[in-house]
Amino acid sequence: MSDPLRLGVVGLGRGFALSARAIAAHPGLRLVGAADPDDESCRAVQGAFGGRIYGDIAALAGDPDIEAIYICTPHHLHRDHALTALRAGKHVLVEKPMAVTLAETHAMIDAAEAEARQLIVGPSHSFDAPVRLAAEMIAAGAIGAVKMIHALYATDFLYRPRRAAELAGDLGGGAVLGQAIHQIDVVRRLAGVPAQRVTARTGGAWDPARRVEGAYAMLVDFDGGIFATLTYSGHGHFDGDRLMEGISELGIRKPDRHRATHPRLHATADEAAARRARRFTRLEDCPQPETHEHFGQVIVFGTQGDLRLTPEGVELSDAQRRSFHPAPITTPRAEVFDALYAAIRHGRAPLQDGAWGRASLEICLAALAGARSGAVQPLQFQR
Amino acid sequence: MSDPLRLGVVGLGRGFALSARAIAAHPGLRLVGAADPDDESCRAVQGAFGGRIYGDIAALAGDPDIEAIYICTPHHLHRDHALTALRAGKHVLVEKPMAVTLAETHAMIDAAEAEARQLIVGPSHSFDAPVRLAAEMIAAGAIGAVKMIHALYATDFLYRPRRAAELAGDLGGGAVLGQAIHQIDVVRRLAGVPAQRVTARTGGAWDPARRVEGAYAMLVDFDGGIFATLTYSGHGHFDGDRLMEGISELGIRKPDRHRATHPRLHATADEAAARRARRFTRLEDCPQPETHEHFGQVIVFGTQGDLRLTPEGVELSDAQRRSFHPAPITTPRAEVFDALYAAIRHGRAPLQDGAWGRASLEICLAALAGARSGAVQPLQFQR
Repeated sequence: MSDPLRLGVVGLGRGFALSARAIAAHPGLRLVGAADPDDESCRAVQGAFGGRIYGDIAALAGDPDIEAIYICTPHHLHRDHALTALRAGKHVLVEKPMAVTLAETHAMIDAAEAEARQLIVGPSHSFDAPVRLAAEMIAAGAIGAVKMIHALYATDFLYRPRRAAELAGDLGGGAVLGQAIHQIDVVRRLAGVPAQRVTARTGGAWDPARRVEGAYAMLVDFDGGIFATLTYSGHGHFDGDRLMEGISELGIRKPDRHRATHPRLHATADEAAARRARRFTRLEDCPQPETHEHFGQVIVFGTQGDLRLTPEGVELSDAQRRSFHPAPITTPRAEVFDALYAAIRHGRAPLQDGAWGRASLEICLAALAGARSGAVQPLQFQR
Repeated sequence: MSDPLRLGVVGLGRGFALSARAIAAHPGLRLVGAADPDDESCRAVQGAFGGRIYGDIAALAGDPDIEAIYICTPHHLHRDHALTALRAGKHVLVEKPMAVTLAETHAMIDAAEAEARQLIVGPSHSFDAPVRLAAEMIAAGAIGAVKMIHALYATDFLYRPRRAAELAGDLGGGAVLGQAIHQIDVVRRLAGVPAQRVTARTGGAWDPARRVEGAYAMLVDFDGGIFATLTYSGHGHFDGDRLMEGISELGIRKPDRHRATHPRLHATADEAAARRARRFTRLEDCPQPETHEHFGQVIVFGTQGDLRLTPEGVELSDAQRRSFHPAPITTPRAEVFDALYAAIRHGRAPLQDGAWGRASLEICLAALAGARSGAVQPLQFQR
């Protein structure tokens, strides 16, 4: 990686903070510009990475030195920010979910095509090294034909300090756009074929104090008769990391105790301020993973064996034996920036391109619609 | 229990072997008669319990000393055997699934009503003490309103030695009638309200050598917007007991190694003989549970907390803390025979009566129909 990519970033909140160490450590990247309305965050990034700071996406996109822009702004701003970047000739890496509506994704994909720029959606947990290893093992025939996929996770998503938009369904808040998108990405990658339809339930907003869905269950049908169940709660009660060897979503070993998210939130006088406190401050304060990231319990059932994903690799159980296959050690999220580099420097677009991001968002939106109506939802942007 | 029930049993196979210790240990029961076409099994039961032996259900039902008959014969014989017993004035405890078709269950329920006899369906894992404790905790408000239930289990069901009928869908073989019936019973008990409809997939027979479904996933809708995902594989690859603290379905601690069901079956020259070897022989040879029985991972998500079932009790995670609630120590399956005793001596029918068994079977049959057609299946015998 002799010619590092010159990267800009817009949105210096939690999403960026979670990727900052991977960016800093990546030999193929240099963060040369950052934009955010919050001056303090801008100065913090400049302190950590050097580079130039801007007040908004338009100014950032006008920096001729920047080749690609990483969009970490709130979900409902993704479309406008991506279009601004693409039309200024920048490649785009946009956080999941790619956008909030399908119309927004169409515009983003069209713009990327018109400008002949790369459009990549990530990070998402489909990039995690154990997911990639599992997909490779499946492709190599380790479990015969994939038949059924199971995914379960339970977090405290809904009760971490939140901005108002994160609790507003029409702005892309809620567990489906914010969290199912990961599970769907992972399950799609492992199924390896297009989804056909989704049957989903959320039960609406379980807590009148958090007026958005915080949980869901889905049954997704794929081509070839593959089916998947996805179950998730972000209500902060049962801790799904206990099914993942006590390792958090971000790859950090946790003490075996109740995480007490609710009492902490109740003790918080100013939730918005608490949310701001989770923005990027210093590299040293960003989470430091010890294993790969994960998104909870995932088991793939095949005709000849089953795979269980762990934070450190893949466990294969077939007719004869159980074996553990460690995923190559990397910096978590390095995979995402490897993909960005390969796309731009070598023209090799990753799986998680605009069409991929649209397909995953379509499943989320169909799940929300199906949860409201009770009906099975067909899908049309999966190919 | 000063007046023990005088019990007869028909069918001395694996099902009876799994209940034999509970029957022998129960102060409210005396096994006074047994029927089976296999002389050796009859003599084995007579050796263990005393009592009289018969060649068939008609002769057993003609024994005037017997008050109740426990029917452990193959699924497709349940109806005929139950009708014979009921019409001879015996109370009936019939193994799950209650029968193979809804028409059969109607006839059984009608006969029990006409004869004013008790008709109880069990054992099933809905009797397990942790399930009962969880239902009691829910009723006491421990997790607020139940919203979502998750169930996952993976066993070697399909590759244990089998009779031909157990691999024939039209005779009640396969994972749905044989195994989903447990998960459905457990989930129904925890939901506490009637089911409305089921969306299910099996992927058919994954292995041409075992021509019946061995796995499934279901999304079940209940009254009040409660929904449940049930996922199961009996293919003998991933071992679901590893999610249950290494304890088997029968409540026995297992070594942490691959169970090697496939190699064992392949080394079996005569599968029918191997199946017969699993019949009742001696009490000492029957499985000796160390904990309660279970049917895999079950998590109930409520508005105020979540419950996770374990082989020893119930783990409650709410906003404040995680706490473990041990289920009262009993002999596994004692609950079933307690229920039988209470029904007959005190006229207190258990939850798991004929209408209950029919409702669970209806969900199984609807799941199979829905897996074939792809359509959501309404339910009509749930109240």
